[in-house]
Amino acid sequence: MSAASVPGEHVAVRLVGSELAATLRARSAEVAAELAAGGTPPPKLAVVVATEDESSHAYVRSIARAAHKVGLACDIVDLGAGASTPEIQKTLTALGDDDDVHGTIVQTPLPPGVAAQDVVTSIDPAKDVDGANPSSLGRLATGLPAFAPATAEAVIALLDHHEIELAGKDVVVVGRSTVVGVPVAHLLLARDASVTVCHSRTADLAAHTRQADIVIVAAGRPELVTGDHIAARTVVVDVGTNPTDDGGLVGDVAAAQVGAIAGALTPVPGGVGPVTTALLLWHTVDAARAR
Amino acid sequence: MSAASVPGEHVAVRLVGSELAATLRARSAEVAAELAAGGTPPPKLAVVVATEDESSHAYVRSIARAAHKVGLACDIVDLGAGASTPEIQKTLTALGDDDDVHGTIVQTPLPPGVAAQDVVTSIDPAKDVDGANPSSLGRLATGLPAFAPATAEAVIALLDHHEIELAGKDVVVVGRSTVVGVPVAHLLLARDASVTVCHSRTADLAAHTRQADIVIVAAGRPELVTGDHIAARTVVVDVGTNPTDDGGLVGDVAAAQVGAIAGALTPVPGGVGPVTTALLLWHTVDAARAR
Repeated sequence: MSAASVPGEHVAVRLVGSELAATLRARSAEVAAELAAGGTPPPKLAVVVATEDESSHAYVRSIARAAHKVGLACDIVDLGAGASTPEIQKTLTALGDDDDVHGTIVQTPLPPGVAAQDVVTSIDPAKDVDGANPSSLGRLATGLPAFAPATAEAVIALLDHHEIELAGKDVVVVGRSTVVGVPVAHLLLARDASVTVCHSRTADLAAHTRQADIVIVAAGRPELVTGDHIAARTVVVDVGTNPTDDGGLVGDVAAAQVGAIAGALTPVPGGVGPVTTALLLWHTVDAARAR
Repeated sequence: MSAASVPGEHVAVRLVGSELAATLRARSAEVAAELAAGGTPPPKLAVVVATEDESSHAYVRSIARAAHKVGLACDIVDLGAGASTPEIQKTLTALGDDDDVHGTIVQTPLPPGVAAQDVVTSIDPAKDVDGANPSSLGRLATGLPAFAPATAEAVIALLDHHEIELAGKDVVVVGRSTVVGVPVAHLLLARDASVTVCHSRTADLAAHTRQADIVIVAAGRPELVTGDHIAARTVVVDVGTNPTDDGGLVGDVAAAQVGAIAGALTPVPGGVGPVTTALLLWHTVDAARAR
């Protein structure tokens, strides 16, 4: 008898991110303190912003606060919503040359007419703590050392933390973005999972997701994955963070429906999100330590 | 009634590569002639070899002959089986600096102790006509201009040539190498296919391949995929080229069995192989033209 046939009785295990995020923050704080004890200046993250979008600014401020809490420096480099492609490229090149900066990220959205792919190639690969430069993705895909996009790595770290086996499992990734879907597929392949990448042009999404051991949803579409998409006992990771009209967040998974069927589900907020931020900081500390 | 239930009656369409290879060679010859008419020296491919393996040398000589036939120059740079990692890196850097060279490939196998991933990063991305540098793979995965590995591109080109639709189709790739499996998965995603990558650690390979519209086998294991793996009407692409004891070649697909079930099948030899060589030459011409 499947959990799905007993409405109201089954509740998926909540794969919360808070505990892992706290562990990662503690590790960052520890290494930052060691570096400080050695007389080196604190690891510094530089965040380049070129938008007036208030939610982006709020997110960037939250990163800065989180950085400060673990003993990191964080510079917010606000170029304004009128910044051009060459201006952003020049700023990123300068940050690459700045020995005080250990990690660099570019916040989206970018100004109209500026394509992310035209600026991320200017991020110094050694400081590419969010794995945005295509060369980082290429190195990741070929097994060379590189920072993975923090969100993609957070998915794997969260599954590891909750002791969910990946080797030999059938994993369906919904979404093919270079920020999440594609890099998470590479990380899963490196962990011996069989990986299917589905997307908006997939003919029958549910036919894929219902047969998976693990479903990772990073489509950027509110509640795209419903109860009909998920078989009993499936592990579901929801990477979506879609703002709601009342100022809240909703994932790419219809949590109430899926939670009554799946074996485990990450909450939104409180699942992948906090781990992502903690990994960004950890990558910055790691980059500083590697100097 | 499926074709599988009528043994001996059904024969899969042969997806031969000769016609497409001839078209690609003709295009290369045409552009090479145009460049020559403009007074520029012929496009040149440099092949770095560091092995005594006779079949590798035979393959490299066949590339050189094919290059000469379409009006290209081809230098075979034989470093010997004792070449070290720094020697190969230095050679590749010098070829990157050589204005007369437009394309550079490194032939495998490499000497014991030399890892491909430690030398391919020294290939100039603008001359990386076999898409071996991880930065090429990263650019490919993010939609930036880059040369794809010729074998991976040959798979797509062959399917296009035989007018096999990719958008919305379920494609299973067997093999996760950075030379074929991973880049072909990226090319398929860019063409709106839903893509599953299986490999030696996949729990139930046949469960995946039997549900696919298209199966691409690049596992490097002779006749890994048998009749049991394939449903009627499936399109099967065999990338395998495994030498047999009698000096022949056998693919990764058991051709007789699968040919009696599948809708279409690439022959080995004569399928993906000739297209791959023709694309290597075309990439070199393309690199010369882009100067």
